[in-house]
Amino acid sequence: MNDPIYKLIELTGTSTTSIEDAVDKAIARAHKTIQNLSWFQLVETRGNIEDGKVRHWQVTIKVGFTVNE
Amino acid sequence: MNDPIYKLIELTGTSTTSIEDAVDKAIARAHKTIQNLSWFQLVETRGNIEDGKVRHWQVTIKVGFTVNE
Amino acid sequence: MNDPIYKLIELTGTSTTSIEDAVDKAIARAHKTIQNLSWFQLVETRGNIEDGKVRHWQVTIKVGFTVNE
Amino acid sequence: MNDPIYKLIELTGTSTTSIEDAVDKAIARAHKTIQNLSWFQLVETRGNIEDGKVRHWQVTIKVGFTVNE
Amino acid sequence: MNDPIYKLIELTGTSTTSIEDAVDKAIARAHKTIQNLSWFQLVETRGNIEDGKVRHWQVTIKVGFTVNE
Amino acid sequence: MNDPIYKLIELTGTSTTSIEDAVDKAIARAHKTIQNLSWFQLVETRGNIEDGKVRHWQVTIKVGFTVNE
Amino acid sequence: MNDPIYKLIELTGTSTTSIEDAVDKAIARAHKTIQNLSWFQLVETRGNIEDGKVRHWQVTIKVGFTVNE
Amino acid sequence: MNDPIYKLIELTGTSTTSIEDAVDKAIARAHKTIQNLSWFQLVETRGNIEDGKVRHWQVTIKVGFTVNE
Amino acid sequence: MNDPIYKLIELTGTSTTSIEDAVDKAIARAHKTIQNLSWFQLVETRGNIEDGKVRHWQVTIKVGFTVNE
Amino acid sequence: MNDPIYKLIELTGTSTTSIEDAVDKAIARAHKTIQNLSWFQLVETRGNIEDGKVRHWQVTIKVGFTVNE
Amino acid sequence: MNDPIYKLIELTGTSTTSIEDAVDKAIARAHKTIQNLSWFQLVETRGNIEDGKVRHWQVTIKVGFTVNE
Amino acid sequence: MNDPIYKLIELTGTSTTSIEDAVDKAIARAHKTIQNLSWFQLVETRGNIEDGKVRHWQVTIKVGFTVNE
Repeated sequence: MNDPIYKLIELTGTSTTSIEDAVDKAIARAHKTIQNLSWFQLVETRGNIEDGKVRHWQVTIKVGFTVNE
Repeated sequence: MNDPIYKLIELTGTSTTSIEDAVDKAIARAHKTIQNLSWFQLVETRGNIEDGKVRHWQVTIKVGFTVNE
Repeated sequence: MNDPIYKLIELTGTSTTSIEDAVDKAIARAHKTIQNLSWFQLVETRGNIEDGKVRHWQVTIKVGFTVNE
Repeated sequence: MNDPIYKLIELTGTSTTSIEDAVDKAIARAHKTIQNLSWFQLVETRGNIEDGKVRHWQVTIKVGFTVNE
Repeated sequence: MNDPIYKLIELTGTSTTSIEDAVDKAIARAHKTIQNLSWFQLVETRGNIEDGKVRHWQVTIKVGFTVNE
Repeated sequence: MNDPIYKLIELTGTSTTSIEDAVDKAIARAHKTIQNLSWFQLVETRGNIEDGKVRHWQVTIKVGFTVNE
Repeated sequence: MNDPIYKLIELTGTSTTSIEDAVDKAIARAHKTIQNLSWFQLVETRGNIEDGKVRHWQVTIKVGFTVNE
Repeated sequence: MNDPIYKLIELTGTSTTSIEDAVDKAIARAHKTIQNLSWFQLVETRGNIEDGKVRHWQVTIKVGFTVNE
Repeated sequence: MNDPIYKLIELTGTSTTSIEDAVDKAIARAHKTIQNLSWFQLVETRGNIEDGKVRHWQVTIKVGFTVNE
Repeated sequence: MNDPIYKLIELTGTSTTSIEDAVDKAIARAHKTIQNLSWFQLVETRGNIEDGKVRHWQVTIKVGFTVNE
Repeated sequence: MNDPIYKLIELTGTSTTSIEDAVDKAIARAHKTIQNLSWFQLVETRGNIEDGKVRHWQVTIKVGFTVNE
Repeated sequence: MNDPIYKLIELTGTSTTSIEDAVDKAIARAHKTIQNLSWFQLVETRGNIEDGKVRHWQVTIKVGFTVNE
């Protein structure tokens, strides 16, 4: 009943501007198909470089959501 | 054929009584939709507190199950 | 205002019976002097042994509580 | 659009011959149902033993693939 | 005398806007009661989600300050 | 003389009931052949699953004991 | 020929404004002497504090670049 | 009885040819004196170099075996 | 009653001579205000450099002490 | 004189065939410009995927070599 | 023959004076019963405190030795 | 200008006497070719053994130095 159960999935969001934006985008994408997204935690921050500039911030997060029926 | 392949999913079970009960509940919930649950491993143990008492034990596990066909 | 700030302290609770009991005791002790305990996470589980039996479970936790004014 | 988002799943491949073969098999299996597998990383290498010989190499990997629509 | 000693405390700052803002707020709060804050290090970045958007960035840091008399 | 030296061994205890019981059994078994067991620390908690229920809790510990003179 | 080899170097960039800016500056500096910077990964985020404010964000990254001839 | 107990030992196998061969050799050696080797896990892979070539792969593993009487 | 509870604090001691001296100084300083210091564990060893010589060894430790009433 | 000093560099070798081959290639490349390569240790194993097959094994190693006078 | 195999054991040496002395004592003790000790690595440094002074440095090491026949 | 950038290199110093001496020697060696060494951090402590005595302490450190122009 009242003991929630969560599933965690792992996503990598990318952004040309910031770490926060990469996280926002990953969560927004997950929200399209999963209800009740509840929390996230940062796992890793990487990025690719072009011409001496960061091209994409690549931020891997775990996202938790309730799966109770 | 004889070389099994497993998928691992990550779940957080919660319980008002014990770590073991939180794990049991997460596995029971996964069992509703996934056959062949095979093993688990503890990832993290947390909890929330109300009035100086543990309200819920929150135990995150990875659960492995065979995906071969 | 609405952006809470938490402090985390680290405690080792001990118990002759179980991991859960050691955690409960550490939290109960912290509750004597700190309001608003909010959550905890397990850091380490150890114990001492006497005559081939566990004498004390020694469980180290981090406990978080709000410090906003 | 131009900011790809990836999902990561965790698999354990097994092989009687080598670590590489265990990884290949896990990826081949994932490829049956998931398009656009993009990269993997090794998480853990274990194995079971029979009669003093490795029976199965058990290699756990994370596999990333694009989920953008 | 000339060999400084530091104490480290652990705080979680929260912010609706960014990781940097969450850190700033935690440090500003600590500054109210502790002189000589000297350095910090990021321990963990998490957050909660509401309606598919990050509600609060929750950033845990260790903060060091001199305790010499 | 008075500077004790310890050896640490690593054991995995198993139990159908609880983490604590798995630890107790591993220590009881070690006690049959080794005197002066002194302390232990948890290394890993895993388990196998049958029919959607935990079959065995598998708890790996390090156990320390004095080896002087 | 077609199997690229990369070297990784470790840099700490600093910035008075943000984590991203500290990373950008470290990469821009490396770009002065190294061609083909390809990717980076965050290793550690620290900072120093003056008067209760972050003075410099200090972000350590590993940067990879091709060394094939 | 029915709750097996395992001991884990740590070995470094070496090979001039491959990681798998180094593991095989360590397990074969352990098998000479220990019955019931059950499983292993990779701990570390290193090696020494001579004249710009790998001389020996040095692979450290933990090996588990039943110690129940 | 007989189940002690410990608090752990984190300190960085510094010394121009050795790691041990840095630890001694941190503990001596903590002893001024805290009774019953019981044990410590090393967390990190760093240092600053002047003219190609170590100026200060900076050793971070956790120190545990009983907080029972 | 007799107390050797080593420098460690970090390289990522790639190979279409195996982990060992990726390591061999990275070491062979380093050998072109650095004498006295002495040992290596595996840091990370990743890879990219094309059409459900491993395209390149990407193995990051640290390589140590003597830098004495 | 020419591919050595090593066993690693874990020991905690103690000393009232220094980390190095604790390691020396653990190795000297192991040398009484084991030939061919070859190398060691530090695992953990702890200690107990009496009257605000370090009573014993407790240094845990892994020690490797050849087991080939 | 005022936002320093640092490079970190990794070195293993060795000494027949102590951990501190091994670090001192690695830093002294680096100082021969690099100006502005600024700080270091311990990465790993190992050693080799001869006749049951430590022959060389092998201490791996990261050393940071400013690379700004």
